[in-house]
Amino acid sequence: MTEPVPSAANSGTLHLIPVGLSERPINDWLPTAAQQKASALPSYIAENAKTARAFLKQLQLTQPLQEINIHTLTDKADDAMIRQWLTPLLRGEDMGLVSEAGCPAVADPGARVVALAHRLNIRVKPWVGPSSILLGLMASGLEGQRFAFHGYAPVKPDARKQQLKQWEQISLRQKQSQLLIETPYRNVAMFQSLIETLALQTRLCVARDLTGEHEWVSTRSIADWRRLPAPDLASWPTLFLFQA
Amino acid sequence: MTEPVPSAANSGTLHLIPVGLSERPINDWLPTAAQQKASALPSYIAENAKTARAFLKQLQLTQPLQEINIHTLTDKADDAMIRQWLTPLLRGEDMGLVSEAGCPAVADPGARVVALAHRLNIRVKPWVGPSSILLGLMASGLEGQRFAFHGYAPVKPDARKQQLKQWEQISLRQKQSQLLIETPYRNVAMFQSLIETLALQTRLCVARDLTGEHEWVSTRSIADWRRLPAPDLASWPTLFLFQA
Repeated sequence: MTEPVPSAANSGTLHLIPVGLSERPINDWLPTAAQQKASALPSYIAENAKTARAFLKQLQLTQPLQEINIHTLTDKADDAMIRQWLTPLLRGEDMGLVSEAGCPAVADPGARVVALAHRLNIRVKPWVGPSSILLGLMASGLEGQRFAFHGYAPVKPDARKQQLKQWEQISLRQKQSQLLIETPYRNVAMFQSLIETLALQTRLCVARDLTGEHEWVSTRSIADWRRLPAPDLASWPTLFLFQA
Repeated sequence: MTEPVPSAANSGTLHLIPVGLSERPINDWLPTAAQQKASALPSYIAENAKTARAFLKQLQLTQPLQEINIHTLTDKADDAMIRQWLTPLLRGEDMGLVSEAGCPAVADPGARVVALAHRLNIRVKPWVGPSSILLGLMASGLEGQRFAFHGYAPVKPDARKQQLKQWEQISLRQKQSQLLIETPYRNVAMFQSLIETLALQTRLCVARDLTGEHEWVSTRSIADWRRLPAPDLASWPTLFLFQA
């Protein structure tokens, strides 16, 4: 089949490899084929080199860990530098991209690398793996036909309240689930903001430590949440989802 | 750890099991632990019983396929009927929920079942598996920190054009990627609508047959797409993503 935008002749493939969200064994969350591919890549671009090495240690590597070249994608890495990292791909070598947790290029800075790969006509291959956004949406029972992921809500109370109200109105008007995350030490405050700000009949899902030992997912109306003791969220990554 | 909303005493778990998006071998897209869990469940709720059986045939089942009870989640299934299906869970048995393709309760009717499970205090466990929404977003290189999945755009040309323009404005204002799907036989028309309607500098990603033999992902500006021959999209599921 001819394609209007063929990959660069003889170029390698940039493999987008998801890493774990928790300490659970790798066979819980990464398909065998993705493990095999990841174990054979000679170089990686990683959000965090330390967590990338911890991920690689879970694989049956085809080469010693210290021989795998890992580039760290900091804020300081400009396009010229990333382009330099990608040169082995243009010679025909494969390369991996990993996030600090979950899927690369989703809710992390990796999209810059993928965007540049497209500009260089390098083939990009996404592999199946864990995403708290998707796992939380599946488990929430909220509208899964239309949803928006917003990242973080504003921290300042007034701006936060206003933003949550606005997302709630969009949810009602468009029948759209609203998804957001928070840094763990602010989870309890976020939960309080949500139950104080949203309408009584709005359904709120709390999805804690997805794939981990303390995984817990519960969906209740705001009215119900207000009657219950607050859940224990301070120590684990948590996704909040709601639908008006 | 005590939870504010404990699961019903001795209840089983509703396992949300993703199924394949393509004909590729199951080890490409489903972690071993999910395969093991799915292979041992005595009953399922499925969007489509035929595709559910095709999925189960890919597993090393612990019981004969014909002994697995499969309830079909049609539009006619009301809450009373679904509640009836869920009764084994209240006796302590586990059960599975599967979609026709990809992750249950995302872009399919399964969320109704999960919502009812939450109302009955039944534990819900999401398993990692393929989602064209997530794979497409990863591979697009578009903004992954904020995105909205809209399902289908309107079919009528004027309404479609207006809707695409509106999503493009939201994308620009909120730095949010916009995701939509189309039925395969309308993919070519959708591609044409997108390149005729969106601004020249907007980036459009076409993600075709994700995880399949004809997987192909390309991100270009509208200006570039207009100069290129149209891609071959008529026969495969395709996700369209754009960012202004």
